[in-house]
Amino acid sequence: RSWTPIEVCSVFPQPSINVNSLSFRSHTCGELRPADVGEEVILCGWVQYLRFDMFHCFKHFILHTYSLCDLPPESVIRVKGTVRLRPDGQENKEMPTGEIEVLAESVEILNVCRKLPFEIKDFVKKSESLRMQYRYLDLRSSQMQYNLRLRSQLVMKMREYLCNVHGFVDVETPTLFKRTPGGAKEFVVPSREPGRFYSLPQSPQQFKQLLMVAGIDRYFQLARCYRDEGSKPDRQPEFTQVDIEMSFVDQAGIRGLIEGLVQYSWPVEKDPVSTPFPCITYEKAMKDYGVDKPDTRFAMKVCSKYLDMILHFGSLVFFVIFLYFFPKEVSVVLVKADGALKSSLNRLMPASAKQQLLQMAQARPGDLLLISAGTQECVRPLLGKLRLQCAELLEGSGVAVRDPSAFHFLWVVDFPLFLPKEEDPDQLESAHHPFTAPLPEDAHLLYSLPHKVRGQHYDLVLNGCEIGGGSIRIHKASDQQHVLETILKEDPSLLSHLLEALDSGAPPHGGIALGLDRFLSIIVGAPSIRDVIAFPKSFRGHDLMSRAPDFVSEDELKSYHISVNWPAGDEGNQEK
Amino acid sequence: RSWTPIEVCSVFPQPSINVNSLSFRSHTCGELRPADVGEEVILCGWVQYLRFDMFHCFKHFILHTYSLCDLPPESVIRVKGTVRLRPDGQENKEMPTGEIEVLAESVEILNVCRKLPFEIKDFVKKSESLRMQYRYLDLRSSQMQYNLRLRSQLVMKMREYLCNVHGFVDVETPTLFKRTPGGAKEFVVPSREPGRFYSLPQSPQQFKQLLMVAGIDRYFQLARCYRDEGSKPDRQPEFTQVDIEMSFVDQAGIRGLIEGLVQYSWPVEKDPVSTPFPCITYEKAMKDYGVDKPDTRFAMKVCSKYLDMILHFGSLVFFVIFLYFFPKEVSVVLVKADGALKSSLNRLMPASAKQQLLQMAQARPGDLLLISAGTQECVRPLLGKLRLQCAELLEGSGVAVRDPSAFHFLWVVDFPLFLPKEEDPDQLESAHHPFTAPLPEDAHLLYSLPHKVRGQHYDLVLNGCEIGGGSIRIHKASDQQHVLETILKEDPSLLSHLLEALDSGAPPHGGIALGLDRFLSIIVGAPSIRDVIAFPKSFRGHDLMSRAPDFVSEDELKSYHISVNWPAGDEGNQEK
Repeated sequence: RSWTPIEVCSVFPQPSINVNSLSFRSHTCGELRPADVGEEVILCGWVQYLRFDMFHCFKHFILHTYSLCDLPPESVIRVKGTVRLRPDGQENKEMPTGEIEVLAESVEILNVCRKLPFEIKDFVKKSESLRMQYRYLDLRSSQMQYNLRLRSQLVMKMREYLCNVHGFVDVETPTLFKRTPGGAKEFVVPSREPGRFYSLPQSPQQFKQLLMVAGIDRYFQLARCYRDEGSKPDRQPEFTQVDIEMSFVDQAGIRGLIEGLVQYSWPVEKDPVSTPFPCITYEKAMKDYGVDKPDTRFAMKVCSKYLDMILHFGSLVFFVIFLYFFPKEVSVVLVKADGALKSSLNRLMPASAKQQLLQMAQARPGDLLLISAGTQECVRPLLGKLRLQCAELLEGSGVAVRDPSAFHFLWVVDFPLFLPKEEDPDQLESAHHPFTAPLPEDAHLLYSLPHKVRGQHYDLVLNGCEIGGGSIRIHKASDQQHVLETILKEDPSLLSHLLEALDSGAPPHGGIALGLDRFLSIIVGAPSIRDVIAFPKSFRGHDLMSRAPDFVSEDELKSYHISVNWPAGDEGNQEK
Repeated sequence: RSWTPIEVCSVFPQPSINVNSLSFRSHTCGELRPADVGEEVILCGWVQYLRFDMFHCFKHFILHTYSLCDLPPESVIRVKGTVRLRPDGQENKEMPTGEIEVLAESVEILNVCRKLPFEIKDFVKKSESLRMQYRYLDLRSSQMQYNLRLRSQLVMKMREYLCNVHGFVDVETPTLFKRTPGGAKEFVVPSREPGRFYSLPQSPQQFKQLLMVAGIDRYFQLARCYRDEGSKPDRQPEFTQVDIEMSFVDQAGIRGLIEGLVQYSWPVEKDPVSTPFPCITYEKAMKDYGVDKPDTRFAMKVCSKYLDMILHFGSLVFFVIFLYFFPKEVSVVLVKADGALKSSLNRLMPASAKQQLLQMAQARPGDLLLISAGTQECVRPLLGKLRLQCAELLEGSGVAVRDPSAFHFLWVVDFPLFLPKEEDPDQLESAHHPFTAPLPEDAHLLYSLPHKVRGQHYDLVLNGCEIGGGSIRIHKASDQQHVLETILKEDPSLLSHLLEALDSGAPPHGGIALGLDRFLSIIVGAPSIRDVIAFPKSFRGHDLMSRAPDFVSEDELKSYHISVNWPAGDEGNQEK
């Protein structure tokens, strides 16, 4: 089997690519066709299985030789031979290579394979931990080959778009940096100076802004980022973002850039993406979908009239009233064939209210209404979750709700710039980060009513997942200082280099970061971002193949002036 | 001043690039020409200086307006205006924009600049530490703009060559990994599990080989690598390498790939690079140049006949004899006008020896001979250093030795696979790393005379600097186990995942890594790799702008189960 499959190259067909250059082979195993009959070829690859007639199968073709009968599957061979048509009746019309075979003149065994922990066949189900432990075998599956090759080609197209079309400069920024104020999720890296630590940054946010002050004008980077969140499902301690920053640009400019970027790099095998992407405000997203990253592949919108909200999808209607007497609860209302309601709310509702309910919900017999009550802040998110759960429930029962081949992009804008702190609602904290500029029409409120200020922040949502976010930044040092010091009560001296930089001729600028792993996992329909990362960590942050993180001797830690605080009774519990 | 300079884009002129797309401006300040006279333009940029006549200068043009007289240099403005010819006598023929100016209709001040710590003019000399502290200002210099933009364009060309020409797959590998055996220079990263640490790898060596086992066939990555070497001049704790691995390939294949890569990505403004690059063996490099990375821009080769070695350059001849009585010393022999020798060695040398010396060195009157003696292992490196010092000395006195615009690439091959350990010469250690395969003709010696085995390692040398190195790898588990266990006396269980992978159908494979920072610094003629890195660390590993590494509170370290071992008397000595 040769894993230079032609079917993967077709994502962005480029006839100029030569995957056999400088190699032992003349062709990949997958590219031979009846037109090649008579050709002398040299092939390299993995033996797939031994057929009953002692022919050997590669993934894409049959090798005609009698010499290899004891060779285990997945052993590596080099074959010199001649392409010929398969004998009558032995063709396999379902394979592009199914009409030919290779008559071997010589076969060289390059490596013999041991008995593997699992067979490398797409239909063989492996546990996640076995896949991770033997990732180098798991990656031989055609799905993982496709995912990694698509990833490579997609980022190449992104680079072409940014560099060659729009003149962006690819700049690498440090990952050994200084701890950011409040950077609780940053890994620390001890240095050789006692007590001094680097920090692995969550994003190049400060550097990208400094590059604008530095006159780079258009920056991008496929940036490795780090976030220590402990054990969280489908998060990775290191991940990659497409990091972009531009000078002399507004929100519309950044949005247009990203729409073009997605369109340019979109796999040709998928339906093309149309632009511009729809754009809604945060307020409308919360009102209509109960969430700031709506899945717009299906309707079932939350509607509110006066104090009422309605979720509507097909013949299912979710109706939610702010009655203030069922906080955070959901009541079920079934519209019976005769139009009567079956619900525990029945006795609480006068006939007129029922009539109003049916009318507002445009409910028909057979419909199901779900009613909840509470404050707007409670009920909207509740309904948003309910909406998604209903979609899943229905899909689980075979009702088509969301088209699995549909890709719905959506901009969400006009987020509040600050939110009340959970632990102290009188205090404000940044909704995203402290560098976001206010909307021009709200800028005057920054000094009077900061909680009313909307920010120039934009999120890019795809099928209900946030795949990117960014903002136009504050470019005046005095505004930035006011936000940090007066509004957020943070110590501005920790960001003194950034404040000084803004004061040194900072141009107006803004940017965005796309979560590449998440974006790709949605494109290929993978259940987890682990399926688009070559060597991911488990959800506990472990590399199951090499067993990282691992114990390090106290001696090796000496030069970093640190020692381990073993929990009581755990000191001797080292694995080595 | 707008730093989207047209002169930089010309490194790889691509008329498709639009650096003004999606921007506030219609043109960059540097692109206007007399042909644009009459054009209505919108420009954004930095005010350079106020002329005596109250015109304002941008870097590339003069703005005709009377409204900005108090605006400090480096303030940011947006100008709407009309291009017109400069008045007679005010043209500047040395600038491409020197014949025109812009008559402003409106000027908007986007940001006012404070008094800067230094003027942003290429001729203003700044100390290294001041440059680093205000890196965002230093990067506005045209040299740093050129360096970073060239870097971006060069790596883009490299990617095009690898992805679009040869079908390589760009795969990202983890940087939070497990400590490698003997990885003394690896930074550690504490995890939330007591005593367990990730390690920041020095290179993706294990992953690139695992990707070959995984059937990726052709891998590359611009890989961030980490090396904790404490304070070393011109080393960086994090650096970037162009990391490449291929299956079913031999040395010639990798060398051909890299020659093509360099040729394809070479700046068009430089003289083209001719291929193939010359190739010499390690033995010959040591013999002729006294070093394994010879600077071949000048001759002055070390020659050895029998026990004699001669360094020859122009009229200077360095003659070195293994006399075994002047270990590690160098004697000077001047050939006088009458052919007699002036030297402290005179009394030790019989007339016949002198004659032989002059003959062997082909010495002429006025020549200088430098003679040393000792074992081959001592004298060769000594001579190698002497050769370079002579070149520097001569150049310092105005003698042209090396052409500063010349780029001499050289392959050095056939390195010994193992070297005696410095601390215990009876023990062997890998000359490069334990994964290098032996030369096929030496493979049988692996089990009998390992110290005689030459490896399939190759170094790429440019102008006397090693800019890359790689090898064909061992692809059979039994050979790898033998090297680790029997020859190197290492615990093979630490690399059990790699050994298992080799046993799972590993194809023959090999690769290379190019040091991107060093390569670029040679191309742009920078004295330090810091000049091709946007935000480098000082030689002590400090970020002088943000002051990283920095102190972290004991509280923040708690979740990582580590505490700082303060050296005696230093505990209270924290900066905050």
